[in-house]
Amino acid sequence: MKIFCQDRTIMFSDCDSAKIVFYPNFFLWFDIATQNMFNEVGLFWGEMWPQYNIAGIPLVDAQASFLSPLRMDDQVTIETWVENWDGKVGTIRHKISKGREIHVEGTEKRVWAVKASESVKGIKAAGIPSEILARLTS
Amino acid sequence: MKIFCQDRTIMFSDCDSAKIVFYPNFFLWFDIATQNMFNEVGLFWGEMWPQYNIAGIPLVDAQASFLSPLRMDDQVTIETWVENWDGKVGTIRHKISKGREIHVEGTEKRVWAVKASESVKGIKAAGIPSEILARLTS
Amino acid sequence: MKIFCQDRTIMFSDCDSAKIVFYPNFFLWFDIATQNMFNEVGLFWGEMWPQYNIAGIPLVDAQASFLSPLRMDDQVTIETWVENWDGKVGTIRHKISKGREIHVEGTEKRVWAVKASESVKGIKAAGIPSEILARLTS
Amino acid sequence: MKIFCQDRTIMFSDCDSAKIVFYPNFFLWFDIATQNMFNEVGLFWGEMWPQYNIAGIPLVDAQASFLSPLRMDDQVTIETWVENWDGKVGTIRHKISKGREIHVEGTEKRVWAVKASESVKGIKAAGIPSEILARLTS
Repeated sequence: MKIFCQDRTIMFSDCDSAKIVFYPNFFLWFDIATQNMFNEVGLFWGEMWPQYNIAGIPLVDAQASFLSPLRMDDQVTIETWVENWDGKVGTIRHKISKGREIHVEGTEKRVWAVKASESVKGIKAAGIPSEILARLTS
Repeated sequence: MKIFCQDRTIMFSDCDSAKIVFYPNFFLWFDIATQNMFNEVGLFWGEMWPQYNIAGIPLVDAQASFLSPLRMDDQVTIETWVENWDGKVGTIRHKISKGREIHVEGTEKRVWAVKASESVKGIKAAGIPSEILARLTS
Repeated sequence: MKIFCQDRTIMFSDCDSAKIVFYPNFFLWFDIATQNMFNEVGLFWGEMWPQYNIAGIPLVDAQASFLSPLRMDDQVTIETWVENWDGKVGTIRHKISKGREIHVEGTEKRVWAVKASESVKGIKAAGIPSEILARLTS
Repeated sequence: MKIFCQDRTIMFSDCDSAKIVFYPNFFLWFDIATQNMFNEVGLFWGEMWPQYNIAGIPLVDAQASFLSPLRMDDQVTIETWVENWDGKVGTIRHKISKGREIHVEGTEKRVWAVKASESVKGIKAAGIPSEILARLTS
């Protein structure tokens, strides 16, 4: 298991009137963390998508547990990793911690979607290329 | 079960580069739908929170399944209801449909949190007042 | 001058830790109001863009004056109109009021951009079609 | 003039259906850049606000010129500085560049607002403390 880490300082713009992080922002950060995972192994989406004929890596499910609130000026670390990616659907796990305390945990389930001119929808699910999965996980 | 409905037209600002609704926005809409549910029964948060000594109604868990993408100009209906609220923690359910097709389903689990000067954190979980629950559910 | 109006209730999600609307949201509402102006005259972007070969209507300048803060539960009206659109660049004006008091005023300057395969950038500025301008303004 | 710099990679989540940065995000970045300016000189808002009796540093005006679009994977630098702060109202300037090319320029005009229990509104404009201005500018 290869874990990708990013640090983040909680900003005024992240917080709501209750002075804690507004919860949809955690899903925004999950999305950013997933993309950063690809960026860190050199798979920039702007290049990778056309190269691999990718239409997107859309979500089929997202979930988060909010264990403890986060507030402005908190320094957090977001840990992200591929929990599994068996063929077409992958599960990416995210953990947001301040020091040793986990504040948020969640998962994104995403589909590897490629362009398919023969399909009515113009896209279809496909298996993640093994060399991409290898770079994300080992 | 009392269902609250809101209509929404998908805007340019809701969509991402793949030309579908950017998924964290669905959680934003869940938050808005939950507040609208209170608004519709006349329980405006700006009045209700101080009146009932509420510190917030923060999330402990959120989940959504994305069954089918939504695109700009789509006309959707968001249905929202209290699935259950046993004491301190309630589950609010949201369903986003276009015509007869469900596109997104999800839940928010929220805590009824009141101000508590005696507590270290300044807040504590409390049971939802029965008259509020009654207005939301019957 | 044809003025387009939309009502909006300020939600929890619109506000920041100072319990007023977080200012970038006003620009989000400007963008939505501009699109709504087209929607109201039946020019849905999803249809109009391909039909008129539009690549987008991007901003070249945006400005807002914040005269008085807005808070959760405030009922506001957003008035939007085309101030002028001389050829390629148009100015759209927005005014956000609560009752008779103006709280926010601003402008968006946008370019009418069409796809241009002969251009290096793939797009070029063009004059707004007169029938579209007529529908927005008269 | 003391210039504060931050680097940023344009993410999928920053972009719209036209595959360029959605313009209200630039104002979000301005807000973040302003707060980062304070953070970098050790004036964290969470500490500074209560210490100096600050109610907020709200906007009275914001403006941006969008000279050239930015796209996913672009590496940008945001330069931020206090252009002037004569007493109660300050002008903060932001410049977003990719390499040597400026893509966005803008200003925020903000008021230094302190809590004032004697005022009807509960807040009033005040002069920025000279030691704070000194840390931001020299």
